Amino acid sequence: MGGSMAKSLKKLYKDIEIIGYDHHKSNESEALKLGFIDKRASYEEILSSDIIILAIPVDGIVSFLKEIKELRKDQTIIDLGSTKAKIISNTPANIRKNLVATHPMAGTEKSGPGAAIDDLYSGKVVVFCDIDESGEEQKEVATKLFRDLGMSIVYMDSISHDRDAAYISHLPHALSFALANTVLKQEDPKSILALAGGGFKDMSRIAKSSPSMWVEIFSQNRENLLTTIEDFQKELSILKEQVQKKDWDSLALLIQEANKLHKIL
Amino acid sequence: MGGSMAKSLKKLYKDIEIIGYDHHKSNESEALKLGFIDKRASYEEILSSDIIILAIPVDGIVSFLKEIKELRKDQTIIDLGSTKAKIISNTPANIRKNLVATHPMAGTEKSGPGAAIDDLYSGKVVVFCDIDESGEEQKEVATKLFRDLGMSIVYMDSISHDRDAAYISHLPHALSFALANTVLKQEDPKSILALAGGGFKDMSRIAKSSPSMWVEIFSQNRENLLTTIEDFQKELSILKEQVQKKDWDSLALLIQEANKLHKIL
Repeated sequence: MGGSMAKSLKKLYKDIEIIGYDHHKSNESEALKLGFIDKRASYEEILSSDIIILAIPVDGIVSFLKEIKELRKDQTIIDLGSTKAKIISNTPANIRKNLVATHPMAGTEKSGPGAAIDDLYSGKVVVFCDIDESGEEQKEVATKLFRDLGMSIVYMDSISHDRDAAYISHLPHALSFALANTVLKQEDPKSILALAGGGFKDMSRIAKSSPSMWVEIFSQNRENLLTTIEDFQKELSILKEQVQKKDWDSLALLIQEANKLHKIL
Repeated sequence: MGGSMAKSLKKLYKDIEIIGYDHHKSNESEALKLGFIDKRASYEEILSSDIIILAIPVDGIVSFLKEIKELRKDQTIIDLGSTKAKIISNTPANIRKNLVATHPMAGTEKSGPGAAIDDLYSGKVVVFCDIDESGEEQKEVATKLFRDLGMSIVYMDSISHDRDAAYISHLPHALSFALANTVLKQEDPKSILALAGGGFKDMSRIAKSSPSMWVEIFSQNRENLLTTIEDFQKELSILKEQVQKKDWDSLALLIQEANKLHKIL
């Protein structure tokens, strides 16, 4: 996420300086080598930047925000964390106006600077959470930045965001992991996978996502995720029972319902 | 499937004549208008063709084959049915050598002649089932045709094919239908779907597939499908229990296992 954003911002704004800081120093070197950042920075240099973009896990974002003693009134922090309620509720009051809590609904199954891709954000949606708590200047800075990246902004409260993100992103990942393992546990998975067409490839792509990132997201959004898994389990049981009972008329109706996605997506 | 194949064959072999027959006469007219077929044909004309390609549901294939009184020894029937055991076991002995039972692992969520796309088959896998029961000449004809389309041929017995197809194609469709309905049944599905990124879009694309086609496939491959759904339900329960128990170490291992798809797909 961070690499792709730096890459796009470099292309957009020729004159800006982007400095990079990462707990994993190898990521810093790689980002420098790939030209996404102009230099590696110290923690102090990061803290004095005009715009600070946090493209790190939610726990890292929370610790980073808690450690800040003070900021200038004109500084903007934009976090890209996948869940928002915990971040916002843990942000110290004296820097709350500095923060714009966002979630760009973009990404791939890959991670690290080497996974950065051009125009990852263009044409996608970004959620701004609890935006009324951010300062006017910060709102403007973040709005310009994401609009320049070609994104549509959706405004939500952080509680609704975390619930909806569970349905639209976290549940699909859980299903993809389970689907991959269903096939991999068969006697001869290679001969099954040799038959994979577009459907299976699409459904299993995100099963390749990073364990550390997704354990973190599942733990941050645990209760919402469990609700969505239970909702899904009910839906799958309905379908299974129709197949068991050979109730093909009801199954046709169930598929027709699913087809309604067509009208929305 | 039929439209895309006719389109590709027209491009490949300039001199062939393709004639079309469909129970739905509007499909015939559309295929003619789109230039996929040279003319609409009678049942008798179809039956005297050199190569007869059956791109229709499994039940239709079975009835078609059962009605045939006789064929010339040099005629080839290629069926593209999604399940194979029922077709092969219902093929009359006197025309068994004429039939090459295939399953091209290609397709989209759309159907009808208007859904035909260029090069649908190129680079994909086609399964030939119980090929030893087909005649030598028919084997050669079908092998040349699918190779010319740019496909790799995999040989399997029809029982294994139907079991593996349940894992690689039918289960993913069941999951996609259930995922779509999980979201569509929420209070405000539109606001959830507004957040859809690549992951959800990929996982729900095949939820837009045709009810009649998929009820037919699910009913043809009912027992295999039920087994795969049960396997999947177990995998999802394991993941869910890890999240419930906050057993993040085991969850990381489960995701690492799923990541192994990377090495194969």
